[in-house]
Amino acid sequence: MNREIKVPMPTLERLGTYWKYLNELEDNYVETLSSANIETGTGINAAQFRKDLSYFGEFGRPGIGYNVHDLQKRIAHILKVDKVQPVLLVGAGNLGSALIGYPGLKRFHFHIVGAFDIDDKKIGSKLWDLDVMDVRRIKEANEELEAKIAILTVPPSAAQSVTDRLVDAGIKVILNFAPCALHVPESVLVREVCFIQELTVLSYHLSS
Amino acid sequence: MNREIKVPMPTLERLGTYWKYLNELEDNYVETLSSANIETGTGINAAQFRKDLSYFGEFGRPGIGYNVHDLQKRIAHILKVDKVQPVLLVGAGNLGSALIGYPGLKRFHFHIVGAFDIDDKKIGSKLWDLDVMDVRRIKEANEELEAKIAILTVPPSAAQSVTDRLVDAGIKVILNFAPCALHVPESVLVREVCFIQELTVLSYHLSS
Repeated sequence: MNREIKVPMPTLERLGTYWKYLNELEDNYVETLSSANIETGTGINAAQFRKDLSYFGEFGRPGIGYNVHDLQKRIAHILKVDKVQPVLLVGAGNLGSALIGYPGLKRFHFHIVGAFDIDDKKIGSKLWDLDVMDVRRIKEANEELEAKIAILTVPPSAAQSVTDRLVDAGIKVILNFAPCALHVPESVLVREVCFIQELTVLSYHLSS
Repeated sequence: MNREIKVPMPTLERLGTYWKYLNELEDNYVETLSSANIETGTGINAAQFRKDLSYFGEFGRPGIGYNVHDLQKRIAHILKVDKVQPVLLVGAGNLGSALIGYPGLKRFHFHIVGAFDIDDKKIGSKLWDLDVMDVRRIKEANEELEAKIAILTVPPSAAQSVTDRLVDAGIKVILNFAPCALHVPESVLVREVCFIQELTVLSYHLSS
């Protein structure tokens, strides 16, 4: 049903926040929570939380609150993170290596199933337990790997040409760590992780 | 003068985007640009670009456009990224190491001047050209380093206690890579870099 509702992007972003927080609560054996707890734990106010959930039906019980495990499962289902998602990583440098080793990814069912680079010195080497493959053969490799998600950790100068290859290889969503805008067809979604930009915003506030 | 105007956060974020793009243009020896070029290069539309600049006075010349170098310098000045900013890094793991090695940071005048960890096996070791120091002595160390910015790359379980130490050591802005919300006094600003959240948003779109 929710496929037919147009859910605003900020709501989806907040759902991701709630979901991470619910995972933390589960780890700490917390069984129920109120929307006031959500506010303390995530900084998002209780009314907003209830509104965000209202897109997806009935949640919680008046006077009792929310069952942490159930809510976690339902949000995971909404965000489609309740199943393993294969992910390709392009750019086998330091950042790529850090991401493969990042425990949060696997935990949230994003499994990096292939690592690629264009540098002959890196191709064939090991990055954690993955063999770094030639990015020029990514389409061929993805016929088997069947990933729809890619993480891009290449220098800005290589980002667009790699993106074109990713699109050609059937990738539908790209998480871009390269500090530059990517041009993609309308059917492909890109999100940028840009910490330089975050730092500049912080820097402004430091002095004002 | 711009210290007295309340500039909206999205405007600051976009200024960071323009600024990165202007740096790219300078690298490619481009001398002038139009607001239409901005739209092609950053995906932000020309009217928005002019509106964002209008907070800070007069820019560009009708019929001629913008001088890339001047505009880059002026935005750098607005964002206060025209001077070196010392930055502390806490969490000397893979992600911390990747960030220290990230060429973009130095390029944009963010210099990581101290690396800290709580793990005795890491304290005293080298992370690139930095000696990893004991996070329990961060206040003392920062009396000399005088950083106001910190980057947090510790596991979520350690994030809050490290944050309390950072605040105590005089840090005013924190870039948080740990997947959790931080509680700080009002005088301290936190920005989160959360790629798990980005991935969940992407994941939703993949299936809808």
